[in-house]
Amino acid sequence: MTAMPRIERALQDAITRAEAAGAPPRLGAALRHAVFPGGARVRPMLCLAVARACGDDRPELADAAAAAIEFLHCASLVHDDLPCFDDAATRRGRPSVHAAFGEPLAVLAGDALIVLAFETLGRAGFAAPDRLPRLLATIAAATGMPHGIVAGQAWECEPSLDLSTYHRAKTGALFTAATLAGAVAAAGTADAWSLLGERLGEAYQVADDLHDVASDAEALGKPVGQDAAHGRANAVHRLGLDGAVRHLRGLVAEALDSIPDCDGSAELRALIGAQAKRFVPTSLATRVAA
Amino acid sequence: MTAMPRIERALQDAITRAEAAGAPPRLGAALRHAVFPGGARVRPMLCLAVARACGDDRPELADAAAAAIEFLHCASLVHDDLPCFDDAATRRGRPSVHAAFGEPLAVLAGDALIVLAFETLGRAGFAAPDRLPRLLATIAAATGMPHGIVAGQAWECEPSLDLSTYHRAKTGALFTAATLAGAVAAAGTADAWSLLGERLGEAYQVADDLHDVASDAEALGKPVGQDAAHGRANAVHRLGLDGAVRHLRGLVAEALDSIPDCDGSAELRALIGAQAKRFVPTSLATRVAA
Repeated sequence: MTAMPRIERALQDAITRAEAAGAPPRLGAALRHAVFPGGARVRPMLCLAVARACGDDRPELADAAAAAIEFLHCASLVHDDLPCFDDAATRRGRPSVHAAFGEPLAVLAGDALIVLAFETLGRAGFAAPDRLPRLLATIAAATGMPHGIVAGQAWECEPSLDLSTYHRAKTGALFTAATLAGAVAAAGTADAWSLLGERLGEAYQVADDLHDVASDAEALGKPVGQDAAHGRANAVHRLGLDGAVRHLRGLVAEALDSIPDCDGSAELRALIGAQAKRFVPTSLATRVAA
Repeated sequence: MTAMPRIERALQDAITRAEAAGAPPRLGAALRHAVFPGGARVRPMLCLAVARACGDDRPELADAAAAAIEFLHCASLVHDDLPCFDDAATRRGRPSVHAAFGEPLAVLAGDALIVLAFETLGRAGFAAPDRLPRLLATIAAATGMPHGIVAGQAWECEPSLDLSTYHRAKTGALFTAATLAGAVAAAGTADAWSLLGERLGEAYQVADDLHDVASDAEALGKPVGQDAAHGRANAVHRLGLDGAVRHLRGLVAEALDSIPDCDGSAELRALIGAQAKRFVPTSLATRVAA
């Protein structure tokens, strides 16, 4: 089975279990709304691609890691959209979870997705308990304190922040975890894969900054100009449009160079090349091609 | 080491790691505020008591399970206190987390505590990976969907609810998990311990209802009369004061009767008897003694 159907099936199976008899139906619907239909599933795709490059000898564990990472990403989107943060009414072209279900269920949907991520990992861990502690540690470190995505979001509440620390936690941590977890799930050498995740995380952050400045809200499916509205640093403000696009291309090149030689490396390079094309808003595509 | 110092040390160690260099300091302070000073630590005490009754051959795993359960309990308090739920300005006699640190950090503190719970479990799991999947499954089931404390809180957002389903999820689930996890951490027979957790969870819910009606806010350290204010069901409204106290005593008796014969059962009965005394508000103590 190719990667995307594996990811969607793993997500579906877990959400279906969460909605089992006796569950509060509106929270079940809020979870489903938060996870489906998804975006490009960039992080779980990266996780599975690395697992495949490492032999993928425990596909159910790699699938669980990929699903866990996507659930944690969705949870962060649901909570970041809340009125006390970005107050975003739309996400992926539809109402955000709090816009559709109200603020209490949005808080609880984020909570339930975080729990579901670890529950999904644990369930797959019955068949490979020796790999579970490391996998759990890798994914938890990317999510919580001191350096995960929750910590990253919390930097927005500090009187001052170091921009690189902020981005590394808020965006980079889960990308790095995606590569490391893919390797750990397949008993690969995790360390060899960290630079790939780090560079892709940085590239994705620059891409997000470009989209925030250069896209229109309809194409992006969420509000644009949010960084300026919320006084957040943005690479385009710092480097200019051309500079940000050049920086993005450099990061993708470094990511590609970091891929260790292995059976699946050609496939992985092709995947990343294809993903990277989506990083640049349509309105800037000619600028990048130049 | 007796149980309470073990619990406090496990909580302190985990929070200290969460506050490591590079962490956003205000979120670190919010976590600490949410966890220390604690209440009676009823759930982790129960978890360790069952682990000891089962031989406690992996104390570091039992400590991690106890700490994880307390972190999840604290996370639920932080999120339940938010303006979109109870809007409670005080907790344990001090400002609630959102009152002290603002709503964004309260949302993130709850998120970080959920992650920290699973991270703490995973860290202890390196020394006993064979027990980790079951432990993780037990604690995740008590927390998330379909029947955990998050699901319980979500029933408040449904147009109608079954009171017993609501209480079983919102309060009972984590008590049951405390007994089961204590047994699993010590390789005991978990099934033998579920009734104890269920009955104590029910008893605790009735005790909470009694406190909400019969205590004053200063003694309780949080607002009283919240159930009436939020239109929530309360056992005292249903059974009357005397009826609720009688029901509570019956539940505690059933809990005590359910304890399996084992080396530590006398110690455990003594602990539960002592805890149960704290269940009844001082103003009702004579009524119970009667």
